[in-house]
Amino acid sequence: MKITKPTLLLDKSKCLNNIKIMAEKATKNNLLLRPHFKTHQSIEIGKWFSDFGINSITVASVSMAEYFAQHGWKDITIAFPFNKLEIDEINELASSIELNLLILSVESINFLKKNLKHKVGIFIKIDAGYHRTGILPENIDILDEILTGILNFDLIEFKGFLTHSGHTYTAGSIDKITAIHNDCLHKMQKLKLHYFKTFPNLIVSIGDTPSCSLMDNFDGIDEIRPGNFVFYDLMQNQFGSCAIDQIALCVACPIVAKYKERNKIIVYGGVVHFSKEYILNEEGERLFGLIIELGNKGWSSPLEGMYVSSLSQEHGIIKAPDEHFEKFKVGDVIGILPVHACLTANLMGSYLTFANEVIDHMP
Amino acid sequence: MKITKPTLLLDKSKCLNNIKIMAEKATKNNLLLRPHFKTHQSIEIGKWFSDFGINSITVASVSMAEYFAQHGWKDITIAFPFNKLEIDEINELASSIELNLLILSVESINFLKKNLKHKVGIFIKIDAGYHRTGILPENIDILDEILTGILNFDLIEFKGFLTHSGHTYTAGSIDKITAIHNDCLHKMQKLKLHYFKTFPNLIVSIGDTPSCSLMDNFDGIDEIRPGNFVFYDLMQNQFGSCAIDQIALCVACPIVAKYKERNKIIVYGGVVHFSKEYILNEEGERLFGLIIELGNKGWSSPLEGMYVSSLSQEHGIIKAPDEHFEKFKVGDVIGILPVHACLTANLMGSYLTFANEVIDHMP
Repeated sequence: MKITKPTLLLDKSKCLNNIKIMAEKATKNNLLLRPHFKTHQSIEIGKWFSDFGINSITVASVSMAEYFAQHGWKDITIAFPFNKLEIDEINELASSIELNLLILSVESINFLKKNLKHKVGIFIKIDAGYHRTGILPENIDILDEILTGILNFDLIEFKGFLTHSGHTYTAGSIDKITAIHNDCLHKMQKLKLHYFKTFPNLIVSIGDTPSCSLMDNFDGIDEIRPGNFVFYDLMQNQFGSCAIDQIALCVACPIVAKYKERNKIIVYGGVVHFSKEYILNEEGERLFGLIIELGNKGWSSPLEGMYVSSLSQEHGIIKAPDEHFEKFKVGDVIGILPVHACLTANLMGSYLTFANEVIDHMP
Repeated sequence: MKITKPTLLLDKSKCLNNIKIMAEKATKNNLLLRPHFKTHQSIEIGKWFSDFGINSITVASVSMAEYFAQHGWKDITIAFPFNKLEIDEINELASSIELNLLILSVESINFLKKNLKHKVGIFIKIDAGYHRTGILPENIDILDEILTGILNFDLIEFKGFLTHSGHTYTAGSIDKITAIHNDCLHKMQKLKLHYFKTFPNLIVSIGDTPSCSLMDNFDGIDEIRPGNFVFYDLMQNQFGSCAIDQIALCVACPIVAKYKERNKIIVYGGVVHFSKEYILNEEGERLFGLIIELGNKGWSSPLEGMYVSSLSQEHGIIKAPDEHFEKFKVGDVIGILPVHACLTANLMGSYLTFANEVIDHMP
């Protein structure tokens, strides 16, 4: 493995283990795992999911649905608000696969009734507390209006209610994540009870990786859609969603300069490789990555006290305590665990495994 | 122009005008304009620079140098610390173009002396106060050691001293940018005086867009390397580097939801399109973009009080005061001025002009 510039390394065994744990958790709790493929955006990694019996997936855009449909995936939910401007692409997709759309309003249903050419499934997006998008679960009038609107309309099948508790990302503690999750379960269960008689097959779907990783109670839930768990990252580790050694991605970066007077090591690897996402450490300092030592088959635990303290477009600036500063020299390649794996993978464009395989990422 | 998903719009006339102003300023001040192509990363936009007589360029990586060399550029400075791991690629490039490298240490010179196969130019990186990389201008011993090291070594030509005052980006006022610039001029002039007798052709090169846009005194400077000015953005506007109507890029985004109860408009357009860069407004709120109305030939001024208040991976959340909230409906396409044009262009991958031309961006 010859690394000369920033390279996204994938520890395949960690990745497979992450998939296995989530797949087993889903089976144990009688949940359909419909993983969100926006994290890896990879045909090859998609195959690893197939090996665990997964046939149904979630994506973040019509373009991503097209990519995976072209590569054999037949059951796709686009977990992004229905965008009427992409109706042609949606009709095209719906002609060949089982496609589920996310509906947020009566207007979208009226538009679909006029413009759909092939059958689609719909999930109604419920706002269970995140307040980004969705219909509040107490707005039964609007839900009824949507559901009445599609009665006797053959091209739309009501699949169920879908929510995303994105506010677990800013909760700050496992207790608070638990509270958000329980509140979400409560609201979704209530909705299910209300509509269960009319729609006995309705699916309740939740999504966020912190809840799916940390929680054990999924009463009333039928489907989970986590994405990030396939790699995990420092943000998820800070939430408690994963152990640090479950993180399956790092960026290998060449060292290009060292400054003893300020204990800084400069690497080739910047915002265009990592994104500008950061977490705060206990001292309130921004941390854009943790440093690991690379071996032939994997990497070490993070080196204590060493972290990426800032990023320019192509440079990474690493703060290194004395004991680690001396260990590295210009021309060495070090590894950096990313703060947000989805964004890093999106920027890097492909993966390299320790078996020297190049793994695709959607262009 | 049919827009159905996030699309990077380029106002070509604004872009050409930005290039023209900087080219004229360079001419007026007797400076070589060696623009940094990391901002646009485009062969086509590169041609627009050629039309202004520009033949020498700056890039941020060996890969970017390869890209532009393949497309006919013959005089390229890689304004990133010399990375010894890429020596093969550097030798290949140096065999066909005039290539300048950035040197930060005696060790790099020793390495080059052993491994170079073709002639290169070198700039010594000076740390004039930013403290990211470079040799402090008072470290005459190290500078002498580097310069002595290449005496009588035919494959290395000393070109001059190069610095980048990246701390103008966090200066906070034009007065402070002026102070940084003047301090930089002073230090670089002193260096030039010191070495001028031995190296009468030595070039002093400075780089940052705020200084190059705002300052009028370039005494002792021979070359400028700004990049961002080709498009400008909200960050540069906040620094005072440009007027808001000089910003030549916006992202056209479909509206997918509206929430009157919190005056929020949701668009298709998120971190994977804009990056997570933000500026703070006067109230200390994070602002990830300003909103404009799109026309057939250009766009409006930013709508007062309306801004992108947060970004998810694919969603943008816009705060809209009542008067603007009512103006837009789901399915409309609005424009968003980016906070950091380099990162947005890097993420979007190509540009669309109002003449419906698709303009390339390095893959």
